[in-house]
Formats: sequence, C-alpha cells, structure tokens
Amino acid sequence: MEEQNDDERFMRAALEQAEIAFEQDEIPVGAVVVSGGRIVARAYNYTEHLNDVTAHAEMQAITSATSASGGKYLTDATLYVTLEPCLMCAGALAWSQIKRIVYGASDPKKGYLLYQNSLENKMKILHPKTEVLGGVLQDECSNLLKRFFSKKRLV
Amino acid sequence: MEEQNDDERFMRAALEQAEIAFEQDEIPVGAVVVSGGRIVARAYNYTEHLNDVTAHAEMQAITSATSASGGKYLTDATLYVTLEPCLMCAGALAWSQIKRIVYGASDPKKGYLLYQNSLENKMKILHPKTEVLGGVLQDECSNLLKRFFSKKRLV
Repeated sequence: MEEQNDDERFMRAALEQAEIAFEQDEIPVGAVVVSGGRIVARAYNYTEHLNDVTAHAEMQAITSATSASGGKYLTDATLYVTLEPCLMCAGALAWSQIKRIVYGASDPKKGYLLYQNSLENKMKILHPKTEVLGGVLQDECSNLLKRFFSKKRLV
Repeated sequence: MEEQNDDERFMRAALEQAEIAFEQDEIPVGAVVVSGGRIVARAYNYTEHLNDVTAHAEMQAITSATSASGGKYLTDATLYVTLEPCLMCAGALAWSQIKRIVYGASDPKKGYLLYQNSLENKMKILHPKTEVLGGVLQDECSNLLKRFFSKKRLV
C-alpha cells in the first residue's frame, strides 16, 4: 500500500512535467527519475521546440539523472513516465539498466510492448532485471493527452 | 558504381569520427548524415565522457542534422554509421523517418536486426520507407572495434 502511494505521488510529479509540455504546445508526456526516495531528474517532451525527435521526456530524464549521479547506470533508480515508452526510449532504458519503470497510460500504437509482445523466443527489449508497472494514474495521464489532441484538432 | 563510391567515401568520413572516439578512449563508432550530397552532421560515440548511455554516435548525428536543417525529419538524408545501430538508435531513426541508413560492421549481439528478424508478422522497427545497406567498409569498421577491445584487455 505504501509503495502504491509512493508510485502515485511520483507519477503526479511526472504529470506536472507533462502539464508543462501541454502549456508549451508539446505532446504532453512527462517523466521523473527517483533514486533513494527522492526525485533526481525531471523532464518533459520537448521535440517540437528543439526540432529533435530524440527529445522525448524519458531520454532527457535519463541524461539528466546520470549527469546528476555521475554514473552511467541507473540500477537503483525508478523512472516514472506518463506514457508507455516507445522503442527508442525502451532501448535507452535498457542501456541504462534501470531498476524499475512505472508508466501511466498505455500506447498501443507506438509503445515498446507492441514489439516486446511480438518477439519470438524469450528476447527482452529492456534489461532482464528491470521491473515494469503500468497503469498508475492511467486516466489522468491519458486524459491530458486526449485533451491535447482534441485542442489540436480545433486549431 | 557511382553510388558505391559515394557510400565508401561517406563511410570513410564516419570512420574518421570513429577514430576520434578511439583516441578519446570511447568505443569507436562514428556517424555522418548526408543530405543533398554533402555532410550536414558528424558525430562519434561519447557515452563515457558524458556518463550518458544515450550519447551514441547516431543519436548525436540525428540531433545535429535536424538542428542544422531546421526540420524535425530526415526524409531526404542518409545516415552513415560504422556499426549496425542498436534498438535505441533504430527507434530514433524510425522517428526521424530517415531516407536511408548505410552501416559498416554488423552487431550480432546488440544490433537492431536481431530484434527485427525475431518479430512475428510484418512489423518493422524502422520507418517503412527507410532503405538499409550494410557491410560498407565492413572490415575497416570492424577492425577498429577489435583493436579497441584488444587494447582494453591489455590494460
């Protein structure tokens, strides 16, 4: 129960990042990295402003967290992200050997699980030790994305 | 024949980047992005210096090329990279919608093709329009990596 509360609390911090993205007219995805019970990195999707498809929230959060820790690996850290990571971000998270990934909304079109579930034999996209939990504050994460895309359609 | 020569010429430029990485004690992988017949971005693996697992040559080359072009997509560009891209880089290249990827050495352990070839149905990791050519200056690209790892073992 305690853990659930912590997960929701840190997902709210990721949602705050997503809301900043929303206000900046970026697809609203936010992420935080937590290590030792505290947030060591915060980031939101910034692809439009940077003209850079690699500037997903997760990528920036990984870069920022490792820069803060001084180590290349995140074996003691948890990434909270409002949307299921894509293949690029899952590949980066694999390299980081992150301990745990918690995501909010699922992404059935571009999420890495579409690929993971289509792989023959027992190949894993993430590091074998990485634990994954999806669906934390799912509705809130998903509603923010829906609100963004319906606003876009009205423009 | 002309194209083959161009591919070798640009792969040599990518190899020069890999050699810079080698000198800096980084795993020697280099990349260039070519658009309109000229090199618009050069990069080499810089993960150790930055403590950043996302700082692969390809990732930096994509960021740099889109920054140079002012557009988010690389639909008219070719990436030359001395080693077959990993899953993270393939995912980033998919987002970039790059026209063509030319790589040197294969990476049977960490390359994206291991995953691509294990996917059921017809899912593609790269953008459906992206063309791929492997094995250009394969021996030179591969030898540089071998030289790096045998040097490491001696230390």
